[in-house]
Amino acid sequence: MSRDELKGLIRTVPDFPSAGIQFRDITTLLAHAEGLAASIDMLAQRAEGLDATKVAGIEARGFIFGTALALRLGVGFVPVRKAGKLPVECIGEDYALEYAEARVELDPSIIEAGDRVLVVDDLLATGGTALAAVRLLRRAGAQVSHALFVIDLPELGGADALSEQGVETLSLVEFAGH
Amino acid sequence: MSRDELKGLIRTVPDFPSAGIQFRDITTLLAHAEGLAASIDMLAQRAEGLDATKVAGIEARGFIFGTALALRLGVGFVPVRKAGKLPVECIGEDYALEYAEARVELDPSIIEAGDRVLVVDDLLATGGTALAAVRLLRRAGAQVSHALFVIDLPELGGADALSEQGVETLSLVEFAGH
Repeated sequence: MSRDELKGLIRTVPDFPSAGIQFRDITTLLAHAEGLAASIDMLAQRAEGLDATKVAGIEARGFIFGTALALRLGVGFVPVRKAGKLPVECIGEDYALEYAEARVELDPSIIEAGDRVLVVDDLLATGGTALAAVRLLRRAGAQVSHALFVIDLPELGGADALSEQGVETLSLVEFAGH
Repeated sequence: MSRDELKGLIRTVPDFPSAGIQFRDITTLLAHAEGLAASIDMLAQRAEGLDATKVAGIEARGFIFGTALALRLGVGFVPVRKAGKLPVECIGEDYALEYAEARVELDPSIIEAGDRVLVVDDLLATGGTALAAVRLLRRAGAQVSHALFVIDLPELGGADALSEQGVETLSLVEFAGH
């Protein structure tokens, strides 16, 4: 499957969650057996040579692609969770959303010395969530040099924001606009 | 890896989310490369012969195992989401939690006529969430005959509750108590 074919399986929903936003929805991609398999194949290609020892996925849609990629690479999966979900002592990072604050949390005990962790999420917009995940993983002792996304919205500047923090981004498809 | 070894990778956290509850936490299993791979191998063994055309996973931890299993079976993945997450017109089912109500939602347009959908989640307790997912999938036109779980807490009666609705449950490991 080509990248354009994969892109064609992503549904665009106008005015969600608010007027003027074109929501790029992966539900239709996930339900498509060949599209789902192709997306993991392509993520695995981009992860080649990065020598990751774990893959971290950001709740909830990052769990979908992150676990599949971890299995493909033969490494463990690290869930970066929303606030209040982890049953153990954890570390947290706040980040800004358009109209609110949000928080992600991590159980630092599952990061081992020397772990090289690849961050995975479905979509890169401003990069705020991914950067919060990177800060968490680094606080826990992980090396984080790369983040993978199915979709990049380059006009929102997420790749630059991550690059400034020493994280290179790779994505499968790009969409113009917000 | 044996089932006992897999069970040993699941962490028990006492008194979470409330006093007296022994929380069975998969974070430690997920981070363990061999444990993660073994859990998907064992789920795939249980799915053999069921001839599923799609796998549905319940947000958020069901996304982790559900997507991996869908890929292994070569079928599409159906996310059963928490309320308000889907950007399109969807159908919803309410269900009771211990002290509250919760709701799961589904985009019915991704279910095709004749789909046989396997429901996957990390843990079976009373079965309330899984039953709500089954009702949603059936309303959308899917056949649902089986649900797979990594962990079953048999004393909570989830398998019986699902069986009464014509859904057979399969799990990898069981824990006594709540």
